[in-house]
Amino acid sequence: MSISYDSNNIFAKILRGEIPCHKVFEDDVALAFMDVMPRGDGHTLVIPKVAARGLLDIPPEALSSLITRVQKIGAAAVKAFAADGLTLQQFNETAGGQQVFHLHFHLLPRFEGVALRPHSGEMAPPAVLKEQAALIVAALA
Amino acid sequence: MSISYDSNNIFAKILRGEIPCHKVFEDDVALAFMDVMPRGDGHTLVIPKVAARGLLDIPPEALSSLITRVQKIGAAAVKAFAADGLTLQQFNETAGGQQVFHLHFHLLPRFEGVALRPHSGEMAPPAVLKEQAALIVAALA
Repeated sequence: MSISYDSNNIFAKILRGEIPCHKVFEDDVALAFMDVMPRGDGHTLVIPKVAARGLLDIPPEALSSLITRVQKIGAAAVKAFAADGLTLQQFNETAGGQQVFHLHFHLLPRFEGVALRPHSGEMAPPAVLKEQAALIVAALA
Repeated sequence: MSISYDSNNIFAKILRGEIPCHKVFEDDVALAFMDVMPRGDGHTLVIPKVAARGLLDIPPEALSSLITRVQKIGAAAVKAFAADGLTLQQFNETAGGQQVFHLHFHLLPRFEGVALRPHSGEMAPPAVLKEQAALIVAALA
């Protein structure tokens, strides 16, 4: 498995402010924003500010801090959407399902009887993502 | 979402030594063992020693410690199986895919062109799990 980090990945560009996102949270450790190709309502990504390709190359101390943000934002997403459950996914390398090579945790609010949508590659309407981000921001407050 | 903890769940019984497991790691924070219904070679579970139902009710400090064990065991599983990738999953509540109500992280070594096996409910042969656990233990050493 590779551990090289390419600073031109799309999440690095979002971290540098070169590409916009529907932000729900930011501090010195993490940035969280809506997945633009959501597999369900409230599908949120949490990424570290530190340059890390995946789970195995992030410094353990940075990972320890990051996971508490994942927990906090997961709780807010569940609250915001009155979800029945929550699925956490984190993919490493193409074989592991990774598509953007900056470490990211997927938070997926889940609902009884509702399957995750397949990876269609279709972008959600920005107005929908904006509204969903606002719900999570409100739940975090 | 529920936050109640039922100490009769099967992972609590494993933690108390009432039910055996194919252990790969144990310290004061975490226990890791082979999933008996593996979705792929090397499918390993990492659970906290603290009583927690899921991601949202574990104390943040305990979660921070736990995730470093997840990272360490994930690296060992990748090494042990010479995997091309690694998929991390963590399910909360039935709607979120959870079946045992003690927090657990799934670590799935992944291989190019090999899909995860479906949840068949079929148990792997104990000899296979024993051998796979030994490979991960060796990689941790």
